[in-house]
Amino acid sequence: MEYFYYQNLLTQDAQLNKGECSVQRLKVNIAYDGTGFAGFQVQVKKRTIQLEIEKALEKIHRQPVRIFASGRTDSGVHARSQFIHFDTELELSEQNWENALRTTFPDDITVKNVEKVSSDFHARKNARDKTYRYFIRNTSAIDIFMRNFEWHVPQKLDIQKMKEAALQIEGTHDFTPFSASKSNVKGDKTRTVHHIQLFEEDGRLMVEVKGNGFLTHMVRIIVGTLVDIGLGKKDLDCIEKAFQSKDRRLLGRTSPGKGLFLWEVTY
Amino acid sequence: MEYFYYQNLLTQDAQLNKGECSVQRLKVNIAYDGTGFAGFQVQVKKRTIQLEIEKALEKIHRQPVRIFASGRTDSGVHARSQFIHFDTELELSEQNWENALRTTFPDDITVKNVEKVSSDFHARKNARDKTYRYFIRNTSAIDIFMRNFEWHVPQKLDIQKMKEAALQIEGTHDFTPFSASKSNVKGDKTRTVHHIQLFEEDGRLMVEVKGNGFLTHMVRIIVGTLVDIGLGKKDLDCIEKAFQSKDRRLLGRTSPGKGLFLWEVTY
Repeated sequence: MEYFYYQNLLTQDAQLNKGECSVQRLKVNIAYDGTGFAGFQVQVKKRTIQLEIEKALEKIHRQPVRIFASGRTDSGVHARSQFIHFDTELELSEQNWENALRTTFPDDITVKNVEKVSSDFHARKNARDKTYRYFIRNTSAIDIFMRNFEWHVPQKLDIQKMKEAALQIEGTHDFTPFSASKSNVKGDKTRTVHHIQLFEEDGRLMVEVKGNGFLTHMVRIIVGTLVDIGLGKKDLDCIEKAFQSKDRRLLGRTSPGKGLFLWEVTY
Repeated sequence: MEYFYYQNLLTQDAQLNKGECSVQRLKVNIAYDGTGFAGFQVQVKKRTIQLEIEKALEKIHRQPVRIFASGRTDSGVHARSQFIHFDTELELSEQNWENALRTTFPDDITVKNVEKVSSDFHARKNARDKTYRYFIRNTSAIDIFMRNFEWHVPQKLDIQKMKEAALQIEGTHDFTPFSASKSNVKGDKTRTVHHIQLFEEDGRLMVEVKGNGFLTHMVRIIVGTLVDIGLGKKDLDCIEKAFQSKDRRLLGRTSPGKGLFLWEVTY
């Protein structure tokens, strides 16, 4: 399998070297288990998703290739659906690209789809909306098989109050208090959250947040604040006060990364 | 938390040293994610479930404690419900034992329940029936979040044929051909398989096997044989022939350990 793809790529390479060099932009839909990564973005001496993908692409192209994602994800955060783009001079069909990437990506990153796109497509700039899902285990015992994919909150939660809080966060606001202090987003921090929905089943609580853009830690602070309100540690009106004062400290904790999934990106 | 339990245990210990030494047998229901283990049984220089539990118990008792399980599980095999027993001189309530074990067990082993039992209880000898479940992902793409808990079989399976094969394996037989050649079970290899049921949903196939006892690799060879029959690599009559000749080679492959869960043990 692996041998075949490399042979294939070598042939392509040889043809390319003969002259007609054309660059093709690829839009790639990936998924990853964030457990073994220090987040998306390349960092010195850390295993990151960007690093592993760029290593795989360098193996295929025999030269460095830079990728661009719809956005970064934090350490431990997963992606059910993330998009990246990169440019290539290799001439493979979409299906062969899918197979080549599957063969070279590590075990905890997978490729769902490859699409040839025009050179003005940009994975981050063209992203319209993003949906995140956050999973909370709200029973006394953890589910050991889900321990890297859920935040365990054993205490009783007032779900009704959390739903009321969610309604107050929805809409267009300056989300400064809902962003990490270390956030390096400059300029306007106004974002629109289309909806925050809570679903409960068998002691598992899922929070879905859909919006047109997200600041660093924004979903994790939203979920942490909802949980702290559900536990009675914070009052409902902390949200209104935080929007007014822009004071991060009025809100709840930042929930752990491991419960968070980038679920969908629409273009 | 951890401090509290150790203090508590020290006090208990002190009381015990004053005289009245009584031994209590504990029946402990545990679960584990088998991904990071070289199976249940202690092996030189390998991380096993028995080793990690005995290390935790030695920490609590400040002397070695031997455990006994309902049975071993292979490398990569999980347990949703496994039982062990051990003897202790520490006098803690069942609830405090649960907490103490939760605090000292590693991340990938969890305690579900602790019960004080009489000294003639034996986790293996008293086990009546065992139920295993095996999960197969039967779609072209893997589910990356389930990759350690499912066997990926992308080709089309003839489920109806697999169900017919399952019926032929059910019942009381000499299961010699369904056991690993390295199996160290001596003596009679007659076992009763109460049922083998197949459930299919959303491209995920689950095989449930319930019986009164299992030989080394028995469930994995049953599942591997069903899959090879479902793929058309083996004929239905290979089962009858294998029972007659006791020849392991007539059956299908041994399926990977990672798809297998010890699901239930009844006493």
